[in-house]
Amino acid sequence: MQQEVPSSFSSFSSSSSPPSPQHCLLPLTHLDTAAQCGSETSAEVEENHEVRLEIIPTMRSIVVFYMCYLLCLGLGVACVACVCVWNSQWRGGFAWDGSALQFNWHPVLMVTGLVVVYGMGAVLYRIPLTWGENKLPWKILHAVLMLAALILSILGLCAVFDFHNAKSIPNLYSLHSWIGIATAALFATQWVVGVAGFLLPCSPVSLRKLLKPAHVWMGGIIMLLSIAACISGINEKLFFSLKGNTNGSLPYSSSPPEALYANSLGVLIVAFGLIVLKILSNQQWQHPDSRQQSTVYTPLLHEEN
Amino acid sequence: MQQEVPSSFSSFSSSSSPPSPQHCLLPLTHLDTAAQCGSETSAEVEENHEVRLEIIPTMRSIVVFYMCYLLCLGLGVACVACVCVWNSQWRGGFAWDGSALQFNWHPVLMVTGLVVVYGMGAVLYRIPLTWGENKLPWKILHAVLMLAALILSILGLCAVFDFHNAKSIPNLYSLHSWIGIATAALFATQWVVGVAGFLLPCSPVSLRKLLKPAHVWMGGIIMLLSIAACISGINEKLFFSLKGNTNGSLPYSSSPPEALYANSLGVLIVAFGLIVLKILSNQQWQHPDSRQQSTVYTPLLHEEN
Repeated sequence: MQQEVPSSFSSFSSSSSPPSPQHCLLPLTHLDTAAQCGSETSAEVEENHEVRLEIIPTMRSIVVFYMCYLLCLGLGVACVACVCVWNSQWRGGFAWDGSALQFNWHPVLMVTGLVVVYGMGAVLYRIPLTWGENKLPWKILHAVLMLAALILSILGLCAVFDFHNAKSIPNLYSLHSWIGIATAALFATQWVVGVAGFLLPCSPVSLRKLLKPAHVWMGGIIMLLSIAACISGINEKLFFSLKGNTNGSLPYSSSPPEALYANSLGVLIVAFGLIVLKILSNQQWQHPDSRQQSTVYTPLLHEEN
Repeated sequence: MQQEVPSSFSSFSSSSSPPSPQHCLLPLTHLDTAAQCGSETSAEVEENHEVRLEIIPTMRSIVVFYMCYLLCLGLGVACVACVCVWNSQWRGGFAWDGSALQFNWHPVLMVTGLVVVYGMGAVLYRIPLTWGENKLPWKILHAVLMLAALILSILGLCAVFDFHNAKSIPNLYSLHSWIGIATAALFATQWVVGVAGFLLPCSPVSLRKLLKPAHVWMGGIIMLLSIAACISGINEKLFFSLKGNTNGSLPYSSSPPEALYANSLGVLIVAFGLIVLKILSNQQWQHPDSRQQSTVYTPLLHEEN
């Protein structure tokens, strides 16, 4: 088993260069004494061997990353298509008139915004393309994607609040709605703090270093909560809609095609969320700066030291 | 801001010893050249300074860990107490006779087994007490706790299957049941593979190294899925039970005390799950062996190299 730290994907073009300071992490487990670590007097054969070891898994790592990313993208598109088809084909389509057709925007906008666009925005920094010197365009794109996700989520909340108000149904009484509104509130807070902390030029570097682990951790929490909110929401909607004996429809408990279809949407959402969390948690796919930070262990608890 | 790698909590008793090989990771960000890394010719003053830097956050880290652990324990006890009180006070208590009283065992056993005992078993290895040379007693305790969690979960599934069969209600039709049964199946597989891979003496070390990241990752997934299953389950149960106009009870939408109480149980479960996932994901609280492995980056994708 090899144990190594690819410093960055840029190592593709620097296979003959000597190890940089952080490369001394690479052979640690194969050394007997600390004195050997990072020694520049090592035989050239050994040095080249180390560099080769570093390249092969890095190349594999890129291929595996893009496979996961494509899977993530495919699952995201499938989630959006599936929730649109469910509400247009089985639930009667869309309107913005206070009727049940307005409610249908709720699952579509929440799944699209709070799950899919949010998830794709979260994994943006894991794409090697974003690892250049100039981070600003990618920061802006990350913020714009998250803003789009936030706007879609707020529209999704407006759809259900309007529908409830038109029908005199109380708002925010179910556990689904508690989890959902908490997730949306956390997401809005995360976006505002993220823009203020990472995009405003006046924000000091020390504040950014302090905020970053909390921002990444909170990002994962929001993804997790949005999955829980979606699962409970789809489950609730199917119990509401598939009662049987009304309009000749079959009850949820008899597993009609709509039930199987919407349950499958729930499974797709879980699969999408898990692949996003997997991409976010894999240290090898982190931005080189973050990877270097996590190599020297700077979790939230120690950032302020 | 200091950036350091506490090698283990044992550094309390070895403050005057020289840095071990893995300590050469410690000062990387403060060095200009790779040749300096791990040098044993560094001035003693600098060496002592590094060791002191290492001790202070480690002591803080232990204190913060135990605060989180106590919070986790407190939330776990609160979840179990809350789900028991809900089902005994508002849902009529317990029986094993195919009636609705048998169903009441389902939320109690699933929350206790698949959330609380499972979560406490998952964070066991983060307790510094378990970091001695002899891992076997802790491995056995981990396996026993997880077996207890699995047995409670299976009993919880039996409770609902028996109730459904007695009332001729189909099984496994809702999204809640799909997520729940998938979580229980993953958990059972995880336990069997875990015992075979980590406890059987014939299991080779190479297999254990290969299995471990997958075991840890799957552990987190199971926690996440069990939260989603619990939230959707509590939501579904409240819509079923609080219909209004029957036995003088108020509907869920009017937020009677039971609804607020059971919704709060859902919030407690989410809080417990998040603190478990936070404890699991903090690298500083990992077993020193795992921490050393993750320092040299051996994620799942590279383990097989």
